[in-house]
Amino acid sequence: MIDVARRVDFEALDAADALAPLRQRYRVPEGVIYLDGNSLGVPAHAALEAVREAAEGEWADQLIGAWNGADWIGLPRRLGDRIGRLIGAAPGQTVVADSISVNLFKLLAVALALRPGRRTVLSTTENFPTDLYVAEGLGGLLGGERCRLRTVPLASVSAESLAGSVDDDVAVVMLTQVDFRTGARLELEAITRAVHSRGALVLWDLAHSAGAFPVELDLAGADMAVGCGYKFLGGGPGAPAFAYLAERHHPAAQQPITGWMGHARPFDFDPGYAPAPGIDRLLAGTPPILACRALEGALDVFDEVDLAAVRAKSVALGEALIRLVGESEVAGELELASPVDPEQRGSQVAFRHAEAWPLTQALIAEGVVGDFRAPDLLRLGITPLYLRFTDIFDAVVRLEEVLVSGRHRDRRFSRRARVT
Amino acid sequence: MIDVARRVDFEALDAADALAPLRQRYRVPEGVIYLDGNSLGVPAHAALEAVREAAEGEWADQLIGAWNGADWIGLPRRLGDRIGRLIGAAPGQTVVADSISVNLFKLLAVALALRPGRRTVLSTTENFPTDLYVAEGLGGLLGGERCRLRTVPLASVSAESLAGSVDDDVAVVMLTQVDFRTGARLELEAITRAVHSRGALVLWDLAHSAGAFPVELDLAGADMAVGCGYKFLGGGPGAPAFAYLAERHHPAAQQPITGWMGHARPFDFDPGYAPAPGIDRLLAGTPPILACRALEGALDVFDEVDLAAVRAKSVALGEALIRLVGESEVAGELELASPVDPEQRGSQVAFRHAEAWPLTQALIAEGVVGDFRAPDLLRLGITPLYLRFTDIFDAVVRLEEVLVSGRHRDRRFSRRARVT
Repeated sequence: MIDVARRVDFEALDAADALAPLRQRYRVPEGVIYLDGNSLGVPAHAALEAVREAAEGEWADQLIGAWNGADWIGLPRRLGDRIGRLIGAAPGQTVVADSISVNLFKLLAVALALRPGRRTVLSTTENFPTDLYVAEGLGGLLGGERCRLRTVPLASVSAESLAGSVDDDVAVVMLTQVDFRTGARLELEAITRAVHSRGALVLWDLAHSAGAFPVELDLAGADMAVGCGYKFLGGGPGAPAFAYLAERHHPAAQQPITGWMGHARPFDFDPGYAPAPGIDRLLAGTPPILACRALEGALDVFDEVDLAAVRAKSVALGEALIRLVGESEVAGELELASPVDPEQRGSQVAFRHAEAWPLTQALIAEGVVGDFRAPDLLRLGITPLYLRFTDIFDAVVRLEEVLVSGRHRDRRFSRRARVT
Repeated sequence: MIDVARRVDFEALDAADALAPLRQRYRVPEGVIYLDGNSLGVPAHAALEAVREAAEGEWADQLIGAWNGADWIGLPRRLGDRIGRLIGAAPGQTVVADSISVNLFKLLAVALALRPGRRTVLSTTENFPTDLYVAEGLGGLLGGERCRLRTVPLASVSAESLAGSVDDDVAVVMLTQVDFRTGARLELEAITRAVHSRGALVLWDLAHSAGAFPVELDLAGADMAVGCGYKFLGGGPGAPAFAYLAERHHPAAQQPITGWMGHARPFDFDPGYAPAPGIDRLLAGTPPILACRALEGALDVFDEVDLAAVRAKSVALGEALIRLVGESEVAGELELASPVDPEQRGSQVAFRHAEAWPLTQALIAEGVVGDFRAPDLLRLGITPLYLRFTDIFDAVVRLEEVLVSGRHRDRRFSRRARVT
């Protein structure tokens, strides 16, 4: 068993951690080691405060006047630019709107229109299902002669291999930078350039990237991206997503869900549609303000944070986790499913285990909240803004205890719940 | 000038109003007569409480566990069924999701697929712009040979005239039941039957209907509908919208924005899309939970309310408003833009005035909040759940005072704001 006396080493790491004070900005539940911030981030106090203010101080007190008085109308662009800073996007190229699914639909349609004569959306077989579903749905609507989805195994994806897969029929390559199961991270810039060399566009899904480590969309010459407000960004459950479109594509980009918020002059109530000149043309309907304001509060913490430092701590936490598991008595039962090289990982670590489902449930019962991904993964998210080195130590100690004691075989952990 | 002594008559009406106690369920700001609940409803205390609970008691305390623990995953269907009760939809035909714009896009695509060989979306020239824009956007995506928008003047729309306009190329007639400018209300059942007699479907936009008066979608044999969560339903700014699809259409309905929440088994993470068997197939991405929970709280009040009684009070308030304006010293300046017959009105009254913009602003400064709609409308929403007869009296008294004194010509009311 791991010697609990070693905990002092981790206490020392916490004491030396320049990011440690940020934990106080979050409302982390007592007694919980939360390794699921890559699924739903812990609320920052500022996010909860923003929700209160939006509901009580804006909606209730100002009513309709808050659209101007609290600048609700500016939220999609204002939040977009704040997220833009975290993903290497100069202002005016990112908006917050809708969900990832809806934004993928818009951007895939834009991509196909930008590459006339090409009809293939190329992705990976292991991509997050909604990404594949949306491409499939667009193909169903447009017909196979205008849109078809082709997938290649993620394991085969590199800048070189992709260049070989991108033939003259590929309009856009749709990739999730960090695999939601294993955390494997793709080289955004090299892949973007390789795909460009074959005349196709790249649509990046940054669901597990934004807020977790530095992303440089503009530097990479990326075309389009989507991402999630409720994972590392901490915007709250079902927080609206974001969409990025490089400025060079704005004039020609006609997204098909032409709701009034994407109009050049929505409050003129013109009967005909005229897209907004810039990134606002990616908007569709009225944004969910309470959800947007929660995200706005969550972003306050990021204003003070250097993502390179967040990344460095993420790597240190992940390496500590892998090393401790490897040194534990249960090392033989847990196979690392994530890349060994931290440079090839996002901000999570996944282990294969034959009983991953009951193991995940037993850990949750012990206050160690990770999640299960079918068929056999225990997925542990690393969120350096509120995780401590001692959390990693304590989590592995409990993981070892559960497996050694066999507590995960208790029948109460055997039922599959619907959502994890 | 209106004799202020007459106020006692309105006090008597309030005293006799069986719905009067409901006002206490809402947080109406002090000193404000809010005639804009048709744009953004006043929060019910229960809605504000639901937001607090969702943020602090669910997100913060339960984190990822709240998806099951607080049944977040069931919200779209649960809220849909609760709204379904208000629009005459049996359970299992309504979901809460996305915005009206996004839901229109889905349902128009469904409608076109259900009527192969027909390509026209027929609507009214005066329809709310986003409805027209979305049809235009879908047409732009599919091409004119598969989708085209045709509009007829609203003034010409009756069950008989529409039947004449629906030729063999019309797949779906998209109508907003209550005109957002004048409040003119269409006969939902008669029009639905007339359109059906020509082989087309009907998509009703209930933005200004749901929660304002009884709607009977099932009885009318309606096909599809969308509506707004933030107007009469009071779900909060940018509350998610709802979508209705009659059960008979479910098996054949393939909506194109195939996000994971519309999948038959979203948490199996299958690579291929299989639509949920029922109404859930209209879902796309992850719903904005905080916004959904606000709407859920808002719906609590409706559980205790008979919409026929709400309608009766709306008519009484509207008639009182029109009568008082007609008896005022400024009757000659204000032309009723709404139908005279209350049966042909929704729950708002609009007046034409040459200086409607500054007049609206001057009234807001006096605590009478209505809104302006271009080019010359003062629009006054009637929300019987929290409006009193004395509010109507006081509003008309102030309207008369402003116009007689000419205060609306003060230069501070001359600038056009972006949002009203």
